[in-house]
Amino acid sequence: MVPHLVTALTGPINELEQRILESTPVIERWFRLEWMEHTPPFYTSVDIRNAGFKLAPVDTNLFPGGWNNLTPEMLPLAVQAAMAAIEKICPEAKNLLLIPENHTRNVFYLMNVAQLQRIFYSAGLNVRIGSINPEIKEPTPVELPNGERLLLEPVIREGRRLGLKHFDPCTILLNNDLSAGVPGILEDLHEQYLLPPLHAGWHVRRKSNHFRAYEEVAKRFGKLLGMDPWLINPMFAHCGQVNFAENTGLECLQTNVDALLTRIRKKYKEYGIQERPFVVVKADNGTYGMGVMMVRDAAELDNLNRRTKNKMNVIKDGQQVSDVLIQEGVITHERINDAVAEPVVYMMDRYVVGGFYRVHAERGVDENLNAPGASFVPLAFEKSALQPQPGSKPGASVPNRFYMYGVVARLAMLAAAYELEATDPEAQWDV
Amino acid sequence: MVPHLVTALTGPINELEQRILESTPVIERWFRLEWMEHTPPFYTSVDIRNAGFKLAPVDTNLFPGGWNNLTPEMLPLAVQAAMAAIEKICPEAKNLLLIPENHTRNVFYLMNVAQLQRIFYSAGLNVRIGSINPEIKEPTPVELPNGERLLLEPVIREGRRLGLKHFDPCTILLNNDLSAGVPGILEDLHEQYLLPPLHAGWHVRRKSNHFRAYEEVAKRFGKLLGMDPWLINPMFAHCGQVNFAENTGLECLQTNVDALLTRIRKKYKEYGIQERPFVVVKADNGTYGMGVMMVRDAAELDNLNRRTKNKMNVIKDGQQVSDVLIQEGVITHERINDAVAEPVVYMMDRYVVGGFYRVHAERGVDENLNAPGASFVPLAFEKSALQPQPGSKPGASVPNRFYMYGVVARLAMLAAAYELEATDPEAQWDV
Repeated sequence: MVPHLVTALTGPINELEQRILESTPVIERWFRLEWMEHTPPFYTSVDIRNAGFKLAPVDTNLFPGGWNNLTPEMLPLAVQAAMAAIEKICPEAKNLLLIPENHTRNVFYLMNVAQLQRIFYSAGLNVRIGSINPEIKEPTPVELPNGERLLLEPVIREGRRLGLKHFDPCTILLNNDLSAGVPGILEDLHEQYLLPPLHAGWHVRRKSNHFRAYEEVAKRFGKLLGMDPWLINPMFAHCGQVNFAENTGLECLQTNVDALLTRIRKKYKEYGIQERPFVVVKADNGTYGMGVMMVRDAAELDNLNRRTKNKMNVIKDGQQVSDVLIQEGVITHERINDAVAEPVVYMMDRYVVGGFYRVHAERGVDENLNAPGASFVPLAFEKSALQPQPGSKPGASVPNRFYMYGVVARLAMLAAAYELEATDPEAQWDV
Repeated sequence: MVPHLVTALTGPINELEQRILESTPVIERWFRLEWMEHTPPFYTSVDIRNAGFKLAPVDTNLFPGGWNNLTPEMLPLAVQAAMAAIEKICPEAKNLLLIPENHTRNVFYLMNVAQLQRIFYSAGLNVRIGSINPEIKEPTPVELPNGERLLLEPVIREGRRLGLKHFDPCTILLNNDLSAGVPGILEDLHEQYLLPPLHAGWHVRRKSNHFRAYEEVAKRFGKLLGMDPWLINPMFAHCGQVNFAENTGLECLQTNVDALLTRIRKKYKEYGIQERPFVVVKADNGTYGMGVMMVRDAAELDNLNRRTKNKMNVIKDGQQVSDVLIQEGVITHERINDAVAEPVVYMMDRYVVGGFYRVHAERGVDENLNAPGASFVPLAFEKSALQPQPGSKPGASVPNRFYMYGVVARLAMLAAAYELEATDPEAQWDV
């Protein structure tokens, strides 16, 4: 089930890989202790880039779609993790209301919703789909390409509770990233469990907060394993008040791009890396691969064409970009059938439950693959991610590499836990 | 990965199966609430017999061997469940001491030990194997057929702690069923976690206690689903002070065999079942398939031959049989390549993590398959046990059947939890 991967990974990453594999009990115990202090996000997916010399998360999604891309073999892991998550949060729960994104015509997205419904049904909940799309005024069945049928029902707010007609859930699971803000119908639901919490939505979240938390996690993990945290940490900078349409705030961007490229160059020199450094400029609250551009030289910012400016100016749900993250670019050396690929790791509660490769035949190793034309190649984590064998030779087989992906993905998930603690509005009131 | 099963299951079991599949959320929630009140055994395997008209557990093992018979695809589930178990019991644990059975020349058993080592290593523990076999006086490497190497080390007792040379575990996992009693070296280990507890060993456990607890569980589950608990419950009786060698106590056996056959006959009549009833007479603390005989008529007990008496008189580790369980015989209608088969379900903590078919080409549908000549056919639980689909047609495909096996196995596990509570010596002192 492992697809044929044309990898040619050499250099420091193999040392790192070996150290990670040998340190399995130490790493797993460290996570165990971290999860005693910190609550993992309910579910998480992490995009990872493997440059050979460096392995880093580049995006952490707290409302993951794409569950339909996991193979059937992975589902029991997801179900088991879902059972553990529910047991902890609301063991007495009977009914779960799943709130999807509003794009009701994207059947791939709706297959993801159906997959989530299946997972939580198997974990022991009555699951129904409550749409907050104003166009959904009555129960609307949708036929899916695989022959399944999904029923989208309009949510009903009654006083302090949200539900459907004849369906009063004790738990509400959001698969809607709230890019456009929190609709009033979701506010003040203090009687029901709302997962993930509202402040995990992109109306509040900032990538720069996440990667600041990740930097801290990477430092601690680097110390644990006695290694340079840069090997797993993408450096970054942040600019506020950028307006691509009006050409304002671009000086900050240029200065920071230039400084970051210099820092990367220095690191490349230290490790003898021949690649040309680049940075990725991203909307600080962007998602869906929108509002992303690659920059190899600060001078490029002088001459942005209209198309690029438009692309950078507005992101999902028509949100205007103002805060910008400037992130060290990490090339990906993974390829599937000659197409450039990057792994995406899926987690439920604290557990790695699966993953796939995002593949894009028309993109380069230093480009954003989360773009139209991308496809997905499921990955078997079973023989790999969770089972490094004591005394096995790391690097001798492809599968071992996924343990490392599972570790780095969980580091990003832990960073998200730190981030959600730091941004929790209720925690701030407590102080 | 699902082997070709020649099943011809008709009659009431399909109604039952349908009801179980349709009730998934209700069942899973019921288990969730039970596990809030009761602690599941650390790990459990359950032998199940599927007669078509009836499905029942016939043996519940609290020190399961045979982990090596699980396919690699099932291991991540076991690892994830092991992580959950450790997290609950001893999250700070670094070192785990695994104490196997003393038969050091059975490589299949030792492959089971290696598999357990792999599972707990992957879950984040340093695992070493501590033998309590007096023959193991120094670290003894054993080569396994698959090329792996296992190191058996003599345990060392220092004051109140058990360990190995330079290895002080905080957790001790028994894979030794203590049939011969508790060796002194395992007593009074109050500073370390000892799993499962000593009173789960066969020196204390009695099948009759287990099936009494199971009867209670089956009744409650029957009520939950509105069904006759007999459909999942093997009826039983118990005789103490039986001595097969000296022909004493056999009257009790005859009376109870006769009475139980009458009860089975009545049930068969109620359900229109044409099979000939039989009972299984088992040593009440027997294991490894030892001390088991089938009886179709109480008169058979008048003329037991020497060989049968010897077989019934002494069980594992040379223990003399005195207490006897008389259990309703459940035929198995499952076959793999024409050989009679019964499913064995494996659980870690509260989770079903896999299973296999025990197959015996030379045995009949009404015989004990746990005997020399048995082989094991791994089963894929992933597409089945944990994922009944909402609205799917039960019985339409083979896989759905395993969800039911997973349910019945967990009912037996829950019964074991009740049983361990009732027999806990420390709980009795508290009263």
